Amino acid sequence: MRVPRVGNPFTLEQAQSHLLAGPLGGRITFVRADPVEYLASSDKVFDVAVLAHCIWYFASPSTLLRTFKALAPHTKKICIAEWSLTASDSRGIAHVLAALTQAAFECRKPDSESNIRTVLSPRRITELATDAGFKLEAEWVIPSPTMLDGMWEVGPVVSANYLADVRKYVENEREIGVIEAMQDATRSAKAALPAEAKPGAMDTWIGVFVIDT
Amino acid sequence: MRVPRVGNPFTLEQAQSHLLAGPLGGRITFVRADPVEYLASSDKVFDVAVLAHCIWYFASPSTLLRTFKALAPHTKKICIAEWSLTASDSRGIAHVLAALTQAAFECRKPDSESNIRTVLSPRRITELATDAGFKLEAEWVIPSPTMLDGMWEVGPVVSANYLADVRKYVENEREIGVIEAMQDATRSAKAALPAEAKPGAMDTWIGVFVIDT
Repeated sequence: MRVPRVGNPFTLEQAQSHLLAGPLGGRITFVRADPVEYLASSDKVFDVAVLAHCIWYFASPSTLLRTFKALAPHTKKICIAEWSLTASDSRGIAHVLAALTQAAFECRKPDSESNIRTVLSPRRITELATDAGFKLEAEWVIPSPTMLDGMWEVGPVVSANYLADVRKYVENEREIGVIEAMQDATRSAKAALPAEAKPGAMDTWIGVFVIDT
Repeated sequence: MRVPRVGNPFTLEQAQSHLLAGPLGGRITFVRADPVEYLASSDKVFDVAVLAHCIWYFASPSTLLRTFKALAPHTKKICIAEWSLTASDSRGIAHVLAALTQAAFECRKPDSESNIRTVLSPRRITELATDAGFKLEAEWVIPSPTMLDGMWEVGPVVSANYLADVRKYVENEREIGVIEAMQDATRSAKAALPAEAKPGAMDTWIGVFVIDT
Protein backbone atom coordinates (compact mmCIF):
# COMPACT_ATOMS: atom_id res chain seq x y z
CA MET A 1 0.00 0.00 0.00
CA ARG A 2 1.38 3.35 -1.04
CA VAL A 3 1.97 5.84 1.77
CA PRO A 4 0.10 9.03 0.86
CA ARG A 5 2.45 12.00 0.44
CA VAL A 6 0.70 13.97 3.16
CA GLY A 7 1.93 15.59 6.32
CA ASN A 8 3.54 18.86 7.26
CA PRO A 9 6.32 19.78 8.13
CA PHE A 10 7.20 16.12 7.34
CA THR A 11 5.25 13.64 5.24
CA LEU A 12 4.05 10.37 6.75
CA GLU A 13 6.73 8.52 4.77
CA GLN A 14 9.49 10.86 6.02
CA ALA A 15 8.27 10.46 9.62
CA GLN A 16 8.26 6.66 9.35
CA SER A 17 11.74 6.63 7.79
CA HIS A 18 13.01 8.87 10.58
CA LEU A 19 11.66 6.54 13.27
CA LEU A 20 13.00 3.42 11.55
CA ALA A 21 16.49 5.01 11.37
CA GLY A 22 16.43 5.83 15.11
CA PRO A 23 17.33 3.73 18.19
CA LEU A 24 13.86 2.11 18.36
CA GLY A 25 13.83 1.37 14.62
CA GLY A 26 14.65 -2.30 15.08
CA ARG A 27 11.57 -2.78 17.21
CA ILE A 28 9.12 -1.10 14.82
CA THR A 29 7.30 -2.58 11.85
CA PHE A 30 5.13 -0.28 9.78
CA VAL A 31 2.41 -2.30 8.08
CA ARG A 32 0.81 -0.41 5.22
CA ALA A 33 -2.49 -2.22 4.92
CA ASP A 34 -6.21 -1.83 5.43
CA PRO A 35 -6.53 -2.37 9.20
CA VAL A 36 -9.67 -4.52 9.05
CA GLU A 37 -8.15 -6.83 6.41
CA TYR A 38 -4.81 -6.94 8.22
CA LEU A 39 -6.37 -7.81 11.58
CA ALA A 40 -8.57 -10.52 10.03
CA SER A 41 -5.46 -12.27 8.69
CA SER A 42 -3.42 -11.96 11.91
CA ASP A 43 -3.54 -13.54 15.37
CA LYS A 44 -1.16 -11.04 16.99
CA VAL A 45 -2.20 -9.45 20.26
CA PHE A 46 -1.12 -5.87 20.96
CA ASP A 47 -0.74 -4.01 24.27
CA VAL A 48 -2.64 -1.07 22.91
CA ALA A 49 -4.16 0.21 19.67
CA VAL A 50 -3.78 3.92 18.99
CA LEU A 51 -6.02 5.94 16.65
CA ALA A 52 -4.33 9.33 16.46
CA HIS A 53 -6.36 12.04 14.67
CA CYS A 54 -7.29 9.56 11.95
CA ILE A 55 -11.01 8.86 12.41
CA TRP A 56 -12.22 11.81 10.35
CA TYR A 57 -10.45 10.24 7.32
CA PHE A 58 -12.69 7.16 7.63
CA ALA A 59 -15.19 6.66 4.81
CA SER A 60 -18.26 6.33 7.07
CA PRO A 61 -19.35 5.80 10.69
CA SER A 62 -19.79 2.06 10.02
CA THR A 63 -16.16 1.83 8.84
CA LEU A 64 -15.11 2.94 12.32
CA LEU A 65 -17.45 0.41 13.93
CA ARG A 66 -15.97 -2.36 11.75
CA THR A 67 -12.47 -1.26 12.76
CA PHE A 68 -13.33 -1.33 16.48
CA LYS A 69 -14.86 -4.81 16.06
CA ALA A 70 -11.78 -6.00 14.16
CA LEU A 71 -9.57 -4.68 16.99
CA ALA A 72 -11.51 -6.38 19.80
CA PRO A 73 -9.79 -9.81 19.53
CA HIS A 74 -6.35 -8.17 19.19
CA THR A 75 -6.16 -5.62 22.02
CA LYS A 76 -7.62 -4.93 25.44
CA LYS A 77 -7.04 -1.19 25.13
CA ILE A 78 -7.63 1.52 22.52
CA CYS A 79 -6.29 5.05 22.90
CA ILE A 80 -7.88 7.70 20.70
CA ALA A 81 -7.00 11.30 19.94
CA GLU A 82 -9.50 13.13 17.76
CA TRP A 83 -10.82 16.67 17.23
CA SER A 84 -13.51 17.40 19.80
CA LEU A 85 -15.86 19.79 17.93
CA THR A 86 -15.37 22.24 20.81
CA ALA A 87 -13.24 25.39 20.87
CA SER A 88 -12.35 26.49 24.38
CA ASP A 89 -10.07 29.05 22.69
CA SER A 90 -12.08 31.34 20.38
CA ARG A 91 -9.36 31.04 17.72
CA GLY A 92 -10.68 27.51 17.12
CA ILE A 93 -14.32 28.37 16.34
CA ALA A 94 -13.66 28.77 12.60
CA HIS A 95 -12.02 25.32 12.65
CA VAL A 96 -15.19 23.76 14.16
CA LEU A 97 -17.37 25.47 11.53
CA ALA A 98 -14.99 24.59 8.67
CA ALA A 99 -14.91 20.93 9.73
CA LEU A 100 -18.72 20.76 9.81
CA THR A 101 -18.93 22.55 6.44
CA GLN A 102 -16.51 20.07 4.88
CA ALA A 103 -18.43 17.16 6.42
CA ALA A 104 -21.74 18.49 5.05
CA PHE A 105 -20.21 18.62 1.58
CA GLU A 106 -18.07 15.47 1.63
CA CYS A 107 -21.01 13.24 2.64
CA ARG A 108 -22.55 14.08 -0.74
CA LYS A 109 -19.55 12.74 -2.69
CA PRO A 110 -19.61 9.00 -3.47
CA ASP A 111 -15.86 8.81 -2.79
CA SER A 112 -14.30 11.56 -0.74
CA GLU A 113 -10.54 12.05 -0.62
CA SER A 114 -10.75 15.06 1.68
CA ASN A 115 -8.96 15.35 5.02
CA ILE A 116 -12.41 15.42 6.57
CA ARG A 117 -14.73 12.68 5.31
CA THR A 118 -16.63 11.58 8.41
CA VAL A 119 -16.90 13.97 11.33
CA LEU A 120 -17.71 12.04 14.49
CA SER A 121 -18.04 13.65 17.92
CA PRO A 122 -16.44 12.16 21.05
CA ARG A 123 -19.93 11.06 22.12
CA ARG A 124 -20.54 9.22 18.85
CA ILE A 125 -17.06 7.63 18.79
CA THR A 126 -17.70 6.40 22.34
CA GLU A 127 -21.06 4.99 21.26
CA LEU A 128 -19.46 3.05 18.39
CA ALA A 129 -16.63 1.73 20.60
CA THR A 130 -19.26 0.61 23.12
CA ASP A 131 -21.17 -1.18 20.33
CA ALA A 132 -17.94 -3.05 19.57
CA GLY A 133 -17.53 -4.26 23.18
CA PHE A 134 -15.25 -1.58 24.65
CA LYS A 135 -15.98 0.80 27.50
CA LEU A 136 -14.70 4.31 28.10
CA GLU A 137 -12.11 4.25 30.90
CA ALA A 138 -10.98 7.89 30.85
CA GLU A 139 -11.27 10.99 28.66
CA TRP A 140 -9.88 14.49 28.48
CA VAL A 141 -10.44 17.55 26.31
CA ILE A 142 -7.26 19.52 25.66
CA PRO A 143 -7.06 22.97 24.05
CA SER A 144 -4.82 22.80 20.99
CA PRO A 145 -5.12 26.26 19.41
CA THR A 146 -1.60 26.36 18.01
CA MET A 147 -1.93 23.22 15.88
CA LEU A 148 -1.91 24.12 12.18
CA ASP A 149 -5.00 22.10 11.25
CA GLY A 150 -7.34 25.01 11.92
CA MET A 151 -5.62 27.07 9.27
CA TRP A 152 -5.43 24.13 6.86
CA GLU A 153 -9.12 23.27 7.11
CA VAL A 154 -10.49 26.82 7.20
CA GLY A 155 -8.44 27.84 4.12
CA PRO A 156 -10.24 25.77 1.45
CA VAL A 157 -13.71 26.39 2.92
CA VAL A 158 -13.42 30.18 2.80
CA SER A 159 -11.80 30.20 -0.65
CA ALA A 160 -13.65 31.75 -3.58
CA ASN A 161 -13.83 28.52 -5.61
CA TYR A 162 -15.17 26.24 -2.85
CA LEU A 163 -18.79 26.71 -3.87
CA ALA A 164 -18.10 25.90 -7.52
CA ASP A 165 -16.81 22.53 -6.30
CA VAL A 166 -19.96 22.05 -4.18
CA ARG A 167 -22.16 22.73 -7.22
CA LYS A 168 -20.47 19.83 -9.07
CA TYR A 169 -21.91 17.36 -6.54
CA VAL A 170 -25.03 19.02 -5.07
CA GLU A 171 -27.88 20.25 -7.27
CA ASN A 172 -30.74 21.20 -4.95
CA GLU A 173 -30.68 24.96 -4.19
CA ARG A 174 -31.78 24.43 -0.57
CA GLU A 175 -28.97 21.95 0.05
CA ILE A 176 -26.39 24.19 -1.63
CA GLY A 177 -27.78 27.05 0.47
CA VAL A 178 -26.99 25.21 3.71
CA ILE A 179 -23.37 24.57 2.74
CA GLU A 180 -23.07 28.20 1.60
CA ALA A 181 -24.46 29.43 4.95
CA MET A 182 -21.96 27.21 6.79
CA GLN A 183 -19.18 28.57 4.57
CA ASP A 184 -20.21 32.14 5.38
CA ALA A 185 -20.40 31.34 9.12
CA THR A 186 -16.82 30.02 8.85
CA ARG A 187 -15.75 33.18 7.01
CA SER A 188 -17.33 35.37 9.70
CA ALA A 189 -15.68 33.41 12.53
CA LYS A 190 -12.32 33.87 10.78
CA ALA A 191 -13.02 37.57 10.17
CA ALA A 192 -13.92 38.07 13.85
CA LEU A 193 -10.36 37.20 14.94
CA PRO A 194 -7.99 40.05 15.83
CA ALA A 195 -6.21 41.47 12.79
CA GLU A 196 -2.94 39.58 13.34
CA ALA A 197 -4.46 36.27 14.46
CA LYS A 198 -4.64 33.20 12.24
CA PRO A 199 -7.38 30.60 12.74
CA GLY A 200 -6.29 28.20 15.47
CA ALA A 201 -7.30 24.60 15.96
CA MET A 202 -10.23 23.37 18.05
CA ASP A 203 -9.74 21.28 21.19
CA THR A 204 -8.47 17.71 21.01
CA TRP A 205 -10.34 14.90 22.73
CA ILE A 206 -8.44 11.99 24.25
CA GLY A 207 -10.38 8.79 24.98
CA VAL A 208 -9.06 5.58 26.54
CA PHE A 209 -11.15 2.48 26.02
CA VAL A 210 -10.80 -1.02 27.50
CA ILE A 211 -12.54 -4.27 26.68
CA ASP A 212 -15.80 -4.41 28.63
CA THR A 213 -15.53 -7.79 30.38
CA MET B 1 -54.83 33.72 5.50
CA ARG B 2 -54.73 32.35 9.04
CA VAL B 3 -52.23 34.05 11.34
CA PRO B 4 -50.00 31.34 12.82
CA ARG B 5 -50.31 31.15 16.60
CA VAL B 6 -46.64 31.84 17.12
CA GLY B 7 -44.78 34.43 19.10
CA ASN B 8 -43.68 34.85 22.68
CA PRO B 9 -44.52 36.56 25.05
CA PHE B 10 -47.33 37.57 22.63
CA THR B 11 -48.51 35.80 19.51
CA LEU B 12 -48.43 37.56 16.15
CA GLU B 13 -52.24 37.89 16.28
CA GLN B 14 -52.14 39.45 19.78
CA ALA B 15 -49.43 41.90 18.68
CA GLN B 16 -51.43 42.96 15.62
CA SER B 17 -54.62 43.42 17.68
CA HIS B 18 -52.68 45.51 20.21
CA LEU B 19 -51.35 47.82 17.50
CA LEU B 20 -54.77 48.16 15.81
CA ALA B 21 -56.32 49.17 19.17
CA GLY B 22 -53.67 51.87 19.72
CA PRO B 23 -53.47 55.49 18.52
CA LEU B 24 -51.93 54.50 15.15
CA GLY B 25 -54.47 51.73 14.58
CA GLY B 26 -56.54 53.74 12.13
CA ARG B 27 -53.52 54.15 9.86
CA ILE B 28 -52.55 50.46 9.81
CA THR B 29 -53.86 47.68 7.59
CA PHE B 30 -52.53 44.18 8.16
CA VAL B 31 -52.78 42.19 4.96
CA ARG B 32 -52.55 38.46 5.55
CA ALA B 33 -51.46 37.25 2.17
CA ASP B 34 -48.59 35.73 0.25
CA PRO B 35 -46.43 38.81 -0.42
CA VAL B 36 -45.55 37.89 -4.01
CA GLU B 37 -49.22 37.30 -4.93
CA TYR B 38 -50.34 40.41 -3.06
CA LEU B 39 -47.77 42.66 -4.76
CA ALA B 40 -48.59 41.26 -8.20
CA SER B 41 -52.24 42.30 -7.75
CA SER B 42 -51.49 45.77 -6.32
CA ASP B 43 -50.14 49.03 -7.71
CA LYS B 44 -49.49 50.63 -4.32
CA VAL B 45 -46.10 52.21 -3.71
CA PHE B 46 -44.65 52.10 -0.21
CA ASP B 47 -42.01 54.32 1.45
CA VAL B 48 -40.16 51.30 2.71
CA ALA B 49 -40.49 47.52 2.87
CA VAL B 50 -39.33 45.88 6.10
CA LEU B 51 -38.28 42.24 6.44
CA ALA B 52 -37.84 41.74 10.18
CA HIS B 53 -36.28 38.40 11.17
CA CYS B 54 -38.50 36.59 8.67
CA ILE B 55 -36.19 35.41 5.88
CA TRP B 56 -35.21 32.14 7.58
CA TYR B 57 -38.91 31.10 7.40
CA PHE B 58 -38.78 31.32 3.60
CA ALA B 59 -39.07 28.01 1.76
CA SER B 60 -35.93 28.44 -0.36
CA PRO B 61 -33.34 31.00 -1.49
CA SER B 62 -35.26 31.52 -4.75
CA THR B 63 -38.41 32.41 -2.78
CA LEU B 64 -36.49 35.36 -1.31
CA LEU B 65 -35.25 36.37 -4.76
CA ARG B 66 -38.83 36.28 -6.08
CA THR B 67 -39.94 38.42 -3.13
CA PHE B 68 -37.23 41.02 -3.76
CA LYS B 69 -38.18 41.13 -7.46
CA ALA B 70 -41.86 41.50 -6.55
CA LEU B 71 -40.98 44.40 -4.22
CA ALA B 72 -38.90 46.30 -6.79
CA PRO B 73 -41.85 48.09 -8.53
CA HIS B 74 -43.44 48.92 -5.15
CA THR B 75 -40.66 50.42 -3.03
CA LYS B 76 -37.36 52.23 -3.41
CA LYS B 77 -36.07 51.00 -0.05
CA ILE B 78 -35.94 47.69 1.81
CA CYS B 79 -34.84 47.43 5.47
CA ILE B 80 -33.84 43.99 6.67
CA ALA B 81 -33.10 42.58 10.12
CA GLU B 82 -31.91 38.98 10.14
CA TRP B 83 -29.66 36.71 12.21
CA SER B 84 -26.05 37.22 11.16
CA LEU B 85 -24.50 33.75 11.71
CA THR B 86 -21.91 35.47 13.93
CA ALA B 87 -21.72 35.48 17.72
CA SER B 88 -19.67 38.35 19.09
CA ASP B 89 -20.88 37.21 22.54
CA SER B 90 -19.85 33.60 23.22
CA ARG B 91 -23.33 32.86 24.63
CA GLY B 92 -24.55 32.97 21.03
CA ILE B 93 -22.26 30.28 19.57
CA ALA B 94 -24.71 27.47 20.35
CA HIS B 95 -27.41 29.48 18.51
CA VAL B 96 -25.23 29.68 15.37
CA LEU B 97 -24.57 25.92 15.50
CA ALA B 98 -28.22 25.07 16.25
CA ALA B 99 -29.42 27.23 13.33
CA LEU B 100 -27.01 25.50 10.94
CA THR B 101 -28.01 22.06 12.30
CA GLN B 102 -31.68 22.83 11.76
CA ALA B 103 -30.96 24.14 8.26
CA ALA B 104 -29.00 20.97 7.40
CA PHE B 105 -31.98 18.87 8.46
CA GLU B 106 -34.85 21.04 7.19
CA CYS B 107 -33.44 21.18 3.64
CA ARG B 108 -34.04 17.42 3.46
CA LYS B 109 -37.77 17.77 4.17
CA PRO B 110 -40.00 18.40 1.14
CA ASP B 111 -42.12 20.81 3.23
CA SER B 112 -40.56 22.29 6.31
CA GLU B 113 -42.66 24.05 8.95
CA SER B 114 -39.72 24.76 11.21
CA ASN B 115 -38.74 28.24 12.45
CA ILE B 116 -35.57 27.76 10.43
CA ARG B 117 -36.15 26.58 6.86
CA THR B 118 -33.64 28.52 4.79
CA VAL B 119 -30.56 29.92 6.51
CA LEU B 120 -29.10 32.74 4.44
CA SER B 121 -26.08 34.77 5.48
CA PRO B 122 -25.97 38.59 5.20
CA ARG B 123 -23.62 38.13 2.22
CA ARG B 124 -26.07 35.84 0.43
CA ILE B 125 -29.11 38.02 1.20
CA THR B 126 -27.20 40.99 -0.23
CA GLU B 127 -26.35 38.97 -3.34
CA LEU B 128 -30.03 38.09 -3.90
CA ALA B 129 -31.18 41.70 -3.32
CA THR B 130 -28.56 42.83 -5.82
CA ASP B 131 -29.84 40.28 -8.35
CA ALA B 132 -33.29 41.87 -7.92
CA GLY B 133 -31.99 45.37 -8.71
CA PHE B 134 -31.29 46.76 -5.23
CA LYS B 135 -27.97 47.89 -3.80
CA LEU B 136 -26.74 47.80 -0.22
CA GLU B 137 -26.77 51.32 1.23
CA ALA B 138 -25.75 50.59 4.82
CA GLU B 139 -25.34 47.63 7.17
CA TRP B 140 -24.63 46.96 10.85
CA VAL B 141 -24.07 43.89 13.00
CA ILE B 142 -25.55 44.24 16.49
CA PRO B 143 -24.96 41.86 19.40
CA SER B 144 -28.31 40.53 20.64
CA PRO B 145 -27.37 37.94 23.29
CA THR B 146 -30.43 38.48 25.48
CA MET B 147 -32.99 37.68 22.79
CA LEU B 148 -34.75 34.41 23.57
CA ASP B 149 -34.31 32.86 20.13
CA GLY B 150 -30.99 31.26 21.07
CA MET B 151 -32.66 29.25 23.80
CA TRP B 152 -35.65 28.42 21.58
CA GLU B 153 -33.54 27.13 18.69
CA VAL B 154 -30.89 25.31 20.74
CA GLY B 155 -33.53 23.47 22.81
CA PRO B 156 -34.98 21.16 20.15
CA VAL B 157 -31.57 20.47 18.54
CA VAL B 158 -29.98 19.21 21.76
CA SER B 159 -33.06 17.21 22.81
CA ALA B 160 -32.88 13.42 23.01
CA ASN B 161 -35.52 12.80 20.33
CA TYR B 162 -34.14 15.15 17.65
CA LEU B 163 -32.19 12.42 15.91
CA ALA B 164 -35.19 10.08 15.73
CA ASP B 165 -36.93 12.83 13.76
CA VAL B 166 -33.88 13.19 11.46
CA ARG B 167 -33.94 9.44 10.75
CA LYS B 168 -37.53 9.76 9.45
CA TYR B 169 -36.30 11.94 6.57
CA VAL B 170 -32.63 11.05 6.03
CA GLU B 171 -31.50 7.48 5.36
CA ASN B 172 -27.82 7.62 4.40
CA GLU B 173 -25.60 6.97 7.44
CA ARG B 174 -22.99 9.53 6.32
CA GLU B 175 -25.64 12.25 5.96
CA ILE B 176 -27.20 11.38 9.33
CA GLY B 177 -23.67 11.42 10.76
CA VAL B 178 -23.14 15.04 9.70
CA ILE B 179 -26.36 16.25 11.36
CA GLU B 180 -25.47 14.23 14.48
CA ALA B 181 -21.99 15.82 14.59
CA MET B 182 -23.58 19.28 14.25
CA GLN B 183 -26.02 18.39 17.03
CA ASP B 184 -23.14 17.31 19.28
CA ALA B 185 -21.19 20.49 18.47
CA THR B 186 -24.29 22.48 19.52
CA ARG B 187 -24.54 20.45 22.74
CA SER B 188 -20.87 21.09 23.50
CA ALA B 189 -21.21 24.83 22.87
CA LYS B 190 -24.16 24.90 25.28
CA ALA B 191 -22.29 22.80 27.85
CA ALA B 192 -19.28 25.14 27.65
CA LEU B 193 -21.33 28.04 29.05
CA PRO B 194 -20.93 28.93 32.73
CA ALA B 195 -23.20 26.86 35.00
CA GLU B 196 -25.88 29.55 35.40
CA ALA B 197 -25.84 30.83 31.80
CA LYS B 198 -28.53 30.01 29.26
CA PRO B 199 -27.75 29.98 25.54
CA GLY B 200 -28.01 33.53 24.22
CA ALA B 201 -28.81 34.66 20.69
CA MET B 202 -26.30 35.35 17.94
CA ASP B 203 -25.76 38.84 16.50
CA THR B 204 -28.41 40.53 14.38
CA TRP B 205 -27.55 41.96 10.98
CA ILE B 206 -29.30 45.11 9.74
CA GLY B 207 -29.17 45.82 6.01
CA VAL B 208 -30.64 48.83 4.20
CA PHE B 209 -31.12 48.47 0.44
CA VAL B 210 -32.18 51.01 -2.16
CA ILE B 211 -33.14 50.62 -5.81
CA ASP B 212 -29.95 50.66 -7.91
CA THR B 213 -30.73 53.34 -10.46
